[in-house]
Amino acid sequence: MTKNTHEFDLYQKLLDKYKDIVILNNIYSHIYWDLDTYMPEKGTEQRSEEFAMMSGLLHERITDSEVGSLLDQIKEHEKYQKLPAAEKRNIHLIKKEYDRETKVPKELVKAIAKQSAIGNEIWKKAKKESNYELFKPELIKIFDLIKKRAQYINPDLDPYDVLLDLGEPGITREKLDELFSELRDGLIPLIKAIRDSPNKPDYSLIQRDCPKDIQEKISQDAALAAKYDLTSGRIDETVHPFTTGFYDDVRITTNYTLDDFSSSFFAVLHEAGHALYEQNMLKEYKYQPVGFYCSDGFHESQSRFIENVIGRSKEFWEYYLPKLKEITGDIFADVDLEPFVLAINRVIPSKIRVEADPVTYSMHIIVRHEIEKDLFAGNISFDDLPKIWNEKMKEYLGVTIENDAEGLLQDVHWSGGGFGTFPGYAIGNIIDGQLLWKIEQDIPKWRDQVRKGNLSDVVDWLIKNVHQKGNLYDPLDLIKEITGEELSTKYYLDYLHRTFSKIYGLKES
Amino acid sequence: MTKNTHEFDLYQKLLDKYKDIVILNNIYSHIYWDLDTYMPEKGTEQRSEEFAMMSGLLHERITDSEVGSLLDQIKEHEKYQKLPAAEKRNIHLIKKEYDRETKVPKELVKAIAKQSAIGNEIWKKAKKESNYELFKPELIKIFDLIKKRAQYINPDLDPYDVLLDLGEPGITREKLDELFSELRDGLIPLIKAIRDSPNKPDYSLIQRDCPKDIQEKISQDAALAAKYDLTSGRIDETVHPFTTGFYDDVRITTNYTLDDFSSSFFAVLHEAGHALYEQNMLKEYKYQPVGFYCSDGFHESQSRFIENVIGRSKEFWEYYLPKLKEITGDIFADVDLEPFVLAINRVIPSKIRVEADPVTYSMHIIVRHEIEKDLFAGNISFDDLPKIWNEKMKEYLGVTIENDAEGLLQDVHWSGGGFGTFPGYAIGNIIDGQLLWKIEQDIPKWRDQVRKGNLSDVVDWLIKNVHQKGNLYDPLDLIKEITGEELSTKYYLDYLHRTFSKIYGLKES
Repeated sequence: MTKNTHEFDLYQKLLDKYKDIVILNNIYSHIYWDLDTYMPEKGTEQRSEEFAMMSGLLHERITDSEVGSLLDQIKEHEKYQKLPAAEKRNIHLIKKEYDRETKVPKELVKAIAKQSAIGNEIWKKAKKESNYELFKPELIKIFDLIKKRAQYINPDLDPYDVLLDLGEPGITREKLDELFSELRDGLIPLIKAIRDSPNKPDYSLIQRDCPKDIQEKISQDAALAAKYDLTSGRIDETVHPFTTGFYDDVRITTNYTLDDFSSSFFAVLHEAGHALYEQNMLKEYKYQPVGFYCSDGFHESQSRFIENVIGRSKEFWEYYLPKLKEITGDIFADVDLEPFVLAINRVIPSKIRVEADPVTYSMHIIVRHEIEKDLFAGNISFDDLPKIWNEKMKEYLGVTIENDAEGLLQDVHWSGGGFGTFPGYAIGNIIDGQLLWKIEQDIPKWRDQVRKGNLSDVVDWLIKNVHQKGNLYDPLDLIKEITGEELSTKYYLDYLHRTFSKIYGLKES
Repeated sequence: MTKNTHEFDLYQKLLDKYKDIVILNNIYSHIYWDLDTYMPEKGTEQRSEEFAMMSGLLHERITDSEVGSLLDQIKEHEKYQKLPAAEKRNIHLIKKEYDRETKVPKELVKAIAKQSAIGNEIWKKAKKESNYELFKPELIKIFDLIKKRAQYINPDLDPYDVLLDLGEPGITREKLDELFSELRDGLIPLIKAIRDSPNKPDYSLIQRDCPKDIQEKISQDAALAAKYDLTSGRIDETVHPFTTGFYDDVRITTNYTLDDFSSSFFAVLHEAGHALYEQNMLKEYKYQPVGFYCSDGFHESQSRFIENVIGRSKEFWEYYLPKLKEITGDIFADVDLEPFVLAINRVIPSKIRVEADPVTYSMHIIVRHEIEKDLFAGNISFDDLPKIWNEKMKEYLGVTIENDAEGLLQDVHWSGGGFGTFPGYAIGNIIDGQLLWKIEQDIPKWRDQVRKGNLSDVVDWLIKNVHQKGNLYDPLDLIKEITGEELSTKYYLDYLHRTFSKIYGLKES
């Protein structure tokens, strides 16, 4: 058990209260993990009672008036000014959460939880039937509730900006418009050039029967190669891969496709990237706000760095293809490096976001951002949503949406009120480009190391520069702290152009 | 979610408060299960914080002064007298727990939790080194704390009686003395007769290499044969088998011995027996005190009935031996029914309780009962404990204890303050005899049914007569309600004599 030691006793009391919230959150994450892995079929109703109980306890603790009173006393105390930055940051983060959550009426919190559950059920049905009209009334209900919540949190700000700040503190609509417009302008010509390239990926090099027990071995091996610590983690199977937990108990999950080992392989690298972030936080920040991740975008940058920047690189496969062959026997015996790397870097504009390749992925996010922004600004109506969705998909990705199931009903997020959460995925990409730019300066030989299967230096760099900074800074400040530069799309676009030009034999643009 | 519907609103409020306690307990059981099954190696420290949090929350809720006030108001209300018996029982059970837990100072609860953890660590070391002197001071500390707790609960009663009442409400030292003396007098000649029998079990019929994957198949199959519902349960592997959960999520665990399938086989039947009890409680009692088991002894009666009365019977193996052969290929191909049944009913007085056979098992409990009773009465000192233990083991079981690791250090229970909990194991046996006596009247053909693999009638009988009675009665009342007779050892002794006389070719005594 962690000892209470801070000489400023009000601050220590505040941290103790916060620690309870963290522990409750951890318990919550265990029963959530269990739901998705090992819970018996009939356990749903009991589990929903347990979730309601945990949510209630968490809300009570977060909005505990004693926290408010401690915060007031601390700010007025003479010792406050002398606290080190990390401790001031803890106070700031607790205050931010307290202020936010106490502004939202408990009834609204409950109404959102209830409507989420209903919306989720109806969404499943609507997706199955490809019936947007069925989903529309529920979508409007949850949208109105989430909008109301945002207005309670900050009535002076556009609700979409309030929502963005939850996942990506400090990032506004305007900033996103700017970043995404650069991204779009940079991606469109690249996608076109790749489409016109004579190098055509041969996916039959990947799409081969690979039994589950072998894929499980590959998963373990890949996770270990990425420095995921299995003594404080584990890999299980779920429908949708995810990562949960913190510090000494961080679990990842994957899903096996029997005729495509790469589906689970990259899922495991992706989740291992998330897990590394959580496993490598500074021990002295444990149970404190600064002992958490910086933002959704930063979390996503870590998963995508391992999955894409490293995991899809030619250098990694110089090392790993022989290992893959060793583990899989004769399945990939005839496969050569270059065509294999081309195949795992196949670029095909897809209708479905989660199936998208690294190049076209951000375009899905841009579509979503533009629509959400307009919804909150009241510029578009829910009646026109399918039409607008399909037009934008055509315009940005060149795909023709045939029905709403493969269109705006594809994702679960909206049904649960997850508006404003998508941009983090694209911000993660942008951050990765900038981190990579810095890594190439700090560890010039990192690619040679990866070629030899040595990921230690690059992972240690991420640990030191990202993971161990925890939540000491808001994301725009953290990227500047790490790289010395403002967040910019140029590094990411540059990385994509360099990488894919090489793989697809393009003239570098 | 369960609706609040009772027209007596104070009663409904009380049930709502109790429901929260049940849900917290369920959450607790999930993280406990996880600790023993899938928790990563390094997760211990975090988990201990989570346990401390859950214990604190549970203690808060159980001793919530609003519960006390509701109880007072209800008892004084005119509607109270008109409540049906089950609802009055709910109030009684909540009051009993509330009164008990509010009497124990929070500091003492914490001291016990702390000393348990320390005692457990030292016990592990002491057992390894077979060093009682190392364990003795910790044993004295936890003993004193538990004694103190008992005195807070009821200063007018002998502490051992207070402890017995926790697991087996209504059963006193005197009652146990009487039951156990009958048991002992009945068992000693039977054990002697079996020892002198010319029928010698050939354990090589059982002790054969049986791979884990095959044993896993047997486990699933055996659990299903015993009517365990795998859609509201699951089987996992742990060091020590256990059952956890209630209603729609009741999990069992087992442990595989690679050269003895019967170890896991009977563990699974045993735990499935416990699980049946939990899975088959009446739905309308869910989240209420009456929706829980009657007593430790009754819980054990259900596990032992499935494991021993059914699972070791010749009739069961008439049905199951061909199935076992089918699942295991050629491992048991040469085995015949009679010698096989003799082998799984091998009777050998053992030094270790958990390895004991059904006949000698109760003798271990009698030894423990006599020692605990004398400890709380102050009749023996902790210095003499090993000597007394070893003498009693020699006297009652004829075994010579060579060192304390196989003597009084064998069980974990005392290190955590588990005094007064052992008698339930023997009471379970006694109850089984009496239930069996009634079943033989109610379903005369049940053994013929088992022969054909049909366990439905006998399990349905247990569901209707035991499981669905939940905690409507204290154990001595429940056995009378079910069988019309006071609890008596004669039925159990009669069952043992009949069964083992047949197996060992003895003249029935």
